Amino acid sequence: MNADPLTETMARSRGQSDADRHRALREPAAAWFASLRDRICAAFEGIEDDYPTGAALPFADLPAGRFERTSWQRPDAEAGEGGGGTMAVMRGGRVFEKVGVNVSVVHGVFSPAFRAQIPGAAEDPRFWAAGISLVSHMRNPHVPAAHMNTRMIMTTRGWFGGGGDITPMFMEADSAKADAATFHDAFRRACNAHDPEYYPRFKEWCDRYFWLPHRNEPRGLGGIFYDRLDSGEPEADFAFTRDVGLAFLEAYPAIIRRRMHDAWSEADRAHQLVRRGRYAEFNLLHDRGTLFGLQTGGNVDAILMSLPPEAKWP
Amino acid sequence: MNADPLTETMARSRGQSDADRHRALREPAAAWFASLRDRICAAFEGIEDDYPTGAALPFADLPAGRFERTSWQRPDAEAGEGGGGTMAVMRGGRVFEKVGVNVSVVHGVFSPAFRAQIPGAAEDPRFWAAGISLVSHMRNPHVPAAHMNTRMIMTTRGWFGGGGDITPMFMEADSAKADAATFHDAFRRACNAHDPEYYPRFKEWCDRYFWLPHRNEPRGLGGIFYDRLDSGEPEADFAFTRDVGLAFLEAYPAIIRRRMHDAWSEADRAHQLVRRGRYAEFNLLHDRGTLFGLQTGGNVDAILMSLPPEAKWP
Repeated sequence: MNADPLTETMARSRGQSDADRHRALREPAAAWFASLRDRICAAFEGIEDDYPTGAALPFADLPAGRFERTSWQRPDAEAGEGGGGTMAVMRGGRVFEKVGVNVSVVHGVFSPAFRAQIPGAAEDPRFWAAGISLVSHMRNPHVPAAHMNTRMIMTTRGWFGGGGDITPMFMEADSAKADAATFHDAFRRACNAHDPEYYPRFKEWCDRYFWLPHRNEPRGLGGIFYDRLDSGEPEADFAFTRDVGLAFLEAYPAIIRRRMHDAWSEADRAHQLVRRGRYAEFNLLHDRGTLFGLQTGGNVDAILMSLPPEAKWP
Repeated sequence: MNADPLTETMARSRGQSDADRHRALREPAAAWFASLRDRICAAFEGIEDDYPTGAALPFADLPAGRFERTSWQRPDAEAGEGGGGTMAVMRGGRVFEKVGVNVSVVHGVFSPAFRAQIPGAAEDPRFWAAGISLVSHMRNPHVPAAHMNTRMIMTTRGWFGGGGDITPMFMEADSAKADAATFHDAFRRACNAHDPEYYPRFKEWCDRYFWLPHRNEPRGLGGIFYDRLDSGEPEADFAFTRDVGLAFLEAYPAIIRRRMHDAWSEADRAHQLVRRGRYAEFNLLHDRGTLFGLQTGGNVDAILMSLPPEAKWP
């Protein structure tokens, strides 16, 4: 390709200054993801505490669920690979059957196969990435499952990505639609505070992403999804990414509290386990984050933390 | 590419006669797969009948399991697509928790993306395929799960493929090793009756195929796997393919009968459900047959029949 030298120089200088501004956000971003994790874990443990004990509700006799944290290190046998993460997982709670909140800060070198696909990696294969990733599977089939992930990535360029989506087990139910409306409202407000084009764009992106083509059905009732967000103002992109996390923290615990006392039947549970099979299908067949993580030697336990505690394909 | 006209003519004439001989095997192959299905279903229903009732064994109070058959047609909206298949599925038996035996005879047109990967499809995208595919998930964690599949494919060329593999839940147990030895013995004898090179080659192919790279572990204790078998003697390849099915029919029911009375604990069941999670991971992440089927618009229920009735990712 014949490059115009002036355009190249401009691109390089713009790229550099953009990269410098992103670079300055690495520590704050990593700290934010950890602090968001702490706030979410506290909110979820609060729900466990507030679930009525001594009542005739299922699992009311269990102790309130608590997160357990496990740290992992990225094998650094190959030069340039490093960092790690912490999985916070609550298992077998009163309300949460299994919920994982992972944070990680890693760096490494993209393999040749990936370099071409990743912005800014053609020039230099090194990357840095930090993020938070959450998936919750609930006891009560009337409480939706949910997913939230936000991340910051740097190659020679830098960008933010993330989103959140909600998966009610009975997608046609009025209660599910009401929950989805609450969830979407929070993300819409977060988006609109930054750019009126964000919500419609990122909602549609989410609908397209969380889609099971082989079944011609959505994974759930959506939310927002964005990637490679580099508006030219890294600080604004980071602020938006924080607001996405806060929107999730506002909406999802409220939805759980609204539904967690609802009675359910064996048939509801059976339906939930089938829907969870679909969730596993999506994550293993289609989720680019899962496949990317597994292909780049990520931590298998952390990546597959998203899989449901129990699922059925009857 | 500059082709030597003589070489081209020879290749075409050799291809034609090979294709003619394969073409003549299409009906016998389709009939064979259906007849093998009937024999396997009868053997499995016989096991259900023979499981001691009135004894203190789990599930002895259930009625003997029976296969239910459901036929499906390939949507032929696009010209040239047709055929269909029959799923035979036994659910909730005394011994079999879920076992599916699918047969299908389909024809269609490969999409441009697939043509390049498939022998003989570059010249003409049309294909014909028939096969039998079986996956069994057992009640008793000490009875191995198993898979068997044989198929005949035609494009402008023709070939056979297939294999069988066994997945004990406790791969380190002596009993599992004994079961695997029985299973391998049957396939070794079937192979050796045709070509002494088949068993070592196809065993190794199986080990390579049924491998979970992200966990660095095998799916089970192997068996044989072969594909694109076109020795130049289509009738011999078909005879070998029949013997592979018969080897499975000889070995696997015997293994089930040997283990089905073994006592198991809740912990054994929990372990089984975790191993089944691995099985689902393999099929959704790696199994080329599954991914190929889903990508080419195959029957979703038939393809995902292989997924376990219940699985856990605790």
